[in-house]
Amino acid sequence: MGLTALVAGRGRLPVVLARRLRSMGVALAVFALEGADGELRDLSCHFREFQSLALGDLVSGLLSLGVRELYMAGLVPKSLALRGEALDEVGARILRSLDRRDDHSLLGAVVSFLSAHGIRVRSYLEHLSDMLAEPGLMAGRFPSPEEWLDVSYGRRVLKAILPLSFGQTVVVRGRSVVAVEAMEGTDETILRAGRICPGGVVVKMMRSDQDERYDVPVVGDDTLEAMARSRCRVLAVEAGRTILLDKPAFLERADRAGISVVGIRP
Amino acid sequence: MGLTALVAGRGRLPVVLARRLRSMGVALAVFALEGADGELRDLSCHFREFQSLALGDLVSGLLSLGVRELYMAGLVPKSLALRGEALDEVGARILRSLDRRDDHSLLGAVVSFLSAHGIRVRSYLEHLSDMLAEPGLMAGRFPSPEEWLDVSYGRRVLKAILPLSFGQTVVVRGRSVVAVEAMEGTDETILRAGRICPGGVVVKMMRSDQDERYDVPVVGDDTLEAMARSRCRVLAVEAGRTILLDKPAFLERADRAGISVVGIRP
Repeated sequence: MGLTALVAGRGRLPVVLARRLRSMGVALAVFALEGADGELRDLSCHFREFQSLALGDLVSGLLSLGVRELYMAGLVPKSLALRGEALDEVGARILRSLDRRDDHSLLGAVVSFLSAHGIRVRSYLEHLSDMLAEPGLMAGRFPSPEEWLDVSYGRRVLKAILPLSFGQTVVVRGRSVVAVEAMEGTDETILRAGRICPGGVVVKMMRSDQDERYDVPVVGDDTLEAMARSRCRVLAVEAGRTILLDKPAFLERADRAGISVVGIRP
Repeated sequence: MGLTALVAGRGRLPVVLARRLRSMGVALAVFALEGADGELRDLSCHFREFQSLALGDLVSGLLSLGVRELYMAGLVPKSLALRGEALDEVGARILRSLDRRDDHSLLGAVVSFLSAHGIRVRSYLEHLSDMLAEPGLMAGRFPSPEEWLDVSYGRRVLKAILPLSFGQTVVVRGRSVVAVEAMEGTDETILRAGRICPGGVVVKMMRSDQDERYDVPVVGDDTLEAMARSRCRVLAVEAGRTILLDKPAFLERADRAGISVVGIRP
């Protein structure tokens, strides 16, 4: 079996995935985007740094290594992806061709481009299914009726926002939206909410047609840390479609921090 | 003619309105919310500070002064309105009775409560119509085709968000949403966008059923200041339904700062 590639953004998800793939005996070529975890170097047979929208470079790199399959995991700050200097000619052409540049369309365009060169994007979910959120209470006390109202209000707001595909998280307090995520990311959204009106509930979901191969919401220690600083006591995530990194430790840490974690239905 | 009341939030709008009413010979009782401009004291016959959701207090204060008509103007940070200690018993009861606590519902509840006590909420627009945005280019150079695409993308995003009534502003760059406003307000949203990805276009609109009496979007020097710091070069606002404070000076300042101001259709 040849090399499998991992295009790695920021955060711990690519590391967790790389470890699992390695333990299965998969030989990995890691293409690390700016800010990717340094540990990935040790987990790979081939390691290359590259720019997020240098898609021509990426494909020629993949093909020269004989790679036919890849995983994409980790956070790519969109401001980075849209930065002019991060583009190669192919990336710029693809970007120009897009009518919409929401997260969904950008990722879709990357996947199509890879497929057109015979490179298949595989789903990381099959290797991480034990880390998926379950329906119902997973950690902490049961949310209060008031908190449940806020969760369901947040869910209602997300339903309207998710199709626009610019962010997946809202923070709600007293049935009012405190903060909505866009390019700043989840942690910054939670911290902002804490500065304005501490103690809200955090709701995170994915759009119905979002691709489960490479774009599932992920929560981890950083999320808990931001919530603790903002005195947010409830985290509601989509059951079956959210990765808790690494689940047992995550839930234990949430418990200790007095944060309830609940899995909700879309 | 008896006293007319002005319930004044933050910002310059209440001051501008109070000046106009005074110049028409209207005797004003100002009820100043936390953070209201100190100049209001000099523009009023009666001046009282009061808490945003102390609605029982407000109504008894109004009735004891024989007030039958009032204006509401200026920014009320929602975090303030939702703060427990700012509520009196009546305010708390009204808040509890609301299924939705979006801006629209909260303001609507206040207006209904006042009406039920025979106090009419008048529209400030009739006195400020000369400050309304016009369709088309009002200041600066004509936006580039790329900027127009961003304006129309922002408009599309706002159309979906406005019915949720938690914010009126988005910042867009390269047909991607950089920042969405919720409880932090317009200026903070623009400054955040500048930190993430400077140079976006700012689009501000109102929801179709928003009450023109007391809830029209307002832009002023603070908006221009935030835009200049974030290198945002285009401000698109809804023509006929946005107040430019004070219009001639505002447009001149925008011009000097290299900021294009355009009025768009809803």
